[in-house]
Amino acid sequence: MALVVQKYGGTSVGTVEKIRNVARRVAKTFDAGNDVVVIVSAMAGETNRLVALANDMCEFPSEREYDVLVAAGEQVTIALLSMSLLSMGYNAKSYLGSQIPIYTDNAHSRARIKNIDDKKIREDLKNGTILIVAGFQGVDDQGNVTTFGRGGSDTSAVAIAAALEADVCEIYTDVDGVYTTDPRMVPQASKIEKISYEEMLEMASLGAKVLQIRSVEFAKKYNVVIHVRSSFDDRTGTLVMKEDQEMETVLVSGIAYNKDEDKISIFGVPDQPGIAAQIFTPLGEAGITVDMIIQNVSRDGKTDMTFTVPKSDCKKALRFIEEVALKIGADGVSHDNSIAKISIIGVGMRSHAGIAQTMFETLSTEGINIEMISTSEIKVSCIIAAKYTELAVRVLHEAFGLDSRK
Amino acid sequence: MALVVQKYGGTSVGTVEKIRNVARRVAKTFDAGNDVVVIVSAMAGETNRLVALANDMCEFPSEREYDVLVAAGEQVTIALLSMSLLSMGYNAKSYLGSQIPIYTDNAHSRARIKNIDDKKIREDLKNGTILIVAGFQGVDDQGNVTTFGRGGSDTSAVAIAAALEADVCEIYTDVDGVYTTDPRMVPQASKIEKISYEEMLEMASLGAKVLQIRSVEFAKKYNVVIHVRSSFDDRTGTLVMKEDQEMETVLVSGIAYNKDEDKISIFGVPDQPGIAAQIFTPLGEAGITVDMIIQNVSRDGKTDMTFTVPKSDCKKALRFIEEVALKIGADGVSHDNSIAKISIIGVGMRSHAGIAQTMFETLSTEGINIEMISTSEIKVSCIIAAKYTELAVRVLHEAFGLDSRK
Repeated sequence: MALVVQKYGGTSVGTVEKIRNVARRVAKTFDAGNDVVVIVSAMAGETNRLVALANDMCEFPSEREYDVLVAAGEQVTIALLSMSLLSMGYNAKSYLGSQIPIYTDNAHSRARIKNIDDKKIREDLKNGTILIVAGFQGVDDQGNVTTFGRGGSDTSAVAIAAALEADVCEIYTDVDGVYTTDPRMVPQASKIEKISYEEMLEMASLGAKVLQIRSVEFAKKYNVVIHVRSSFDDRTGTLVMKEDQEMETVLVSGIAYNKDEDKISIFGVPDQPGIAAQIFTPLGEAGITVDMIIQNVSRDGKTDMTFTVPKSDCKKALRFIEEVALKIGADGVSHDNSIAKISIIGVGMRSHAGIAQTMFETLSTEGINIEMISTSEIKVSCIIAAKYTELAVRVLHEAFGLDSRK
Repeated sequence: MALVVQKYGGTSVGTVEKIRNVARRVAKTFDAGNDVVVIVSAMAGETNRLVALANDMCEFPSEREYDVLVAAGEQVTIALLSMSLLSMGYNAKSYLGSQIPIYTDNAHSRARIKNIDDKKIREDLKNGTILIVAGFQGVDDQGNVTTFGRGGSDTSAVAIAAALEADVCEIYTDVDGVYTTDPRMVPQASKIEKISYEEMLEMASLGAKVLQIRSVEFAKKYNVVIHVRSSFDDRTGTLVMKEDQEMETVLVSGIAYNKDEDKISIFGVPDQPGIAAQIFTPLGEAGITVDMIIQNVSRDGKTDMTFTVPKSDCKKALRFIEEVALKIGADGVSHDNSIAKISIIGVGMRSHAGIAQTMFETLSTEGINIEMISTSEIKVSCIIAAKYTELAVRVLHEAFGLDSRK
């Protein structure tokens, strides 16, 4: 007997028939003697439909009203799932974010959870009721509806699991776990049994889109064990949890890639104090996130700077940088929109030397030029030409022994 | 400067473009110096879509969850209308039933309004904010979402107008007012300028589907002036209000017809005390509403009973009646599913004699046989063969001078 929090994403509840399947799975968990709290997303396509209505209405929809609008999506799903369970003879009850309540700050469409009132949940669980809670939404101090941004239902689930000190937070998706790399690219990719929060954060931010980053941060903070698994079969998925000794014996847990960044270089920058700030402050103020930054060794009092930005912000960034280049008397600006970032991730790196070197050698053997490098305690990232993405991921996957990993 | 409550139905807010039109009309009312509270229904087709999902899910959806589901429809409209007004530069704010709150009893899908907290509304109005309130929905003492049944947004609007003591409650629909009869049937039908609550109740329950009956009852109780008008033009519509002397000078205000009933007869019923109860109690217990009842004069200790029931309940009613007929030793049962009820309505009847007679003579002149008659203080209804519906309505419309009425 345990307290299980389950979260089902949009594709898992995409049709009435699929919601019925979810109801059966929830019932099975309940019948096994568990207390069950279920968090659901909007039916697949529904959030897009609502967002399209807002965009049809006006160019810059009010954020408060946007949240009221999109929160209607989850409302439909909780009602249908509760109906299904009730018709199967179970006690079930739906809750909107505002009914629990799940209190948040008032940052509409990217609200952060401040507090979850667990009184109603605990009472219902005591009465043998299965709770169905709308993901993605909460309510601020003034009673306004708030939402958490795309993938926010993951965060709802983890936050509720944390508040209830649940034994596990099961996140059901259309994949059966976290893989050593993208299985569509590398058929030999294998499912990871256990992965640390830190590794998962690197995997997620580097382009493995299984869990909302914020939900992993939340889980890490409150030590919630997340079980990522498929809603279409019964197999065990991937546990995202606190790092343990077993994890450290693995050198590299996964290979991630990201083709959504562009590279910008600014040449012949006068090498003097404060120059980096002059270059990057305007970007930061414009809300452009700079990822990797490299500054070359100075020659003749001049240096080159290269950095990456999200593809969608590249044009905007270039406008700022060309202005700055003129002002500081740099020699010129160039950009490259066909790059990829390849990363190897693993907590094992902390205790094993030579891992970065293996990466560089492997890429070099294939004739792949490394344009930029950045490292952290548990990852190494290289920028390469986009056309080599697949090749690089495949050879690294093999080089770090992931092809055969169970 | 007045306080105006406006309600827009599903067809008036059926698309983003139509919602934009509504926003313009609301803005115009506000710009004229009025305080404005707007109540909206779900976009046309949306409630049907949600109900279909519930029916796909299970045969008897939970009433609590049904309300959570369908309430999502109005939520979408209030957000879109607020967005539109805000993008036009007006202060606007959306409210769900639970946010006002509009308190109701807990009779899901047919809840009755108990109390409306007008604090937030009055504060917002003072700040020059246009309020956009979700129709059709409220919240019970326990925080559960409740809804008011089809057409419930009319009741929301009238209830809010009553709570705020608004100067007028404008109900915008796809017709431009209440007509002397169905204009699709009688092209000479004319718009009624003013009609009393009592007449409107008879018109509505007799098949003129402009306003939810309950909203008229509510308006009558709290003396709210309703202005029924079209959202597609600026013309004055019909005022539904307290009876005044002017209304009494009109003999008949309107002709209504209803083809949604069937007639059941039970012959040779032993004429003894308690027999009517024996016949009608099982129907009442089964939730079947009996409308007109006629009992023939008794002959040889036996009598015949004839009554009408909604078409959709006829089969069920027949099963009960055939059982009862056997039990009480009646001679037989028959039914007729091609009848129509034609009614003339007018508060003028109270003070003018001979109106029923004019009706009977007019029908007889056309060779239309009257099968049943029932009367109240302000209406006379006749059951005739369905095939004569149109003819009957037309000749009565002419006979009571409605063709030429302004």
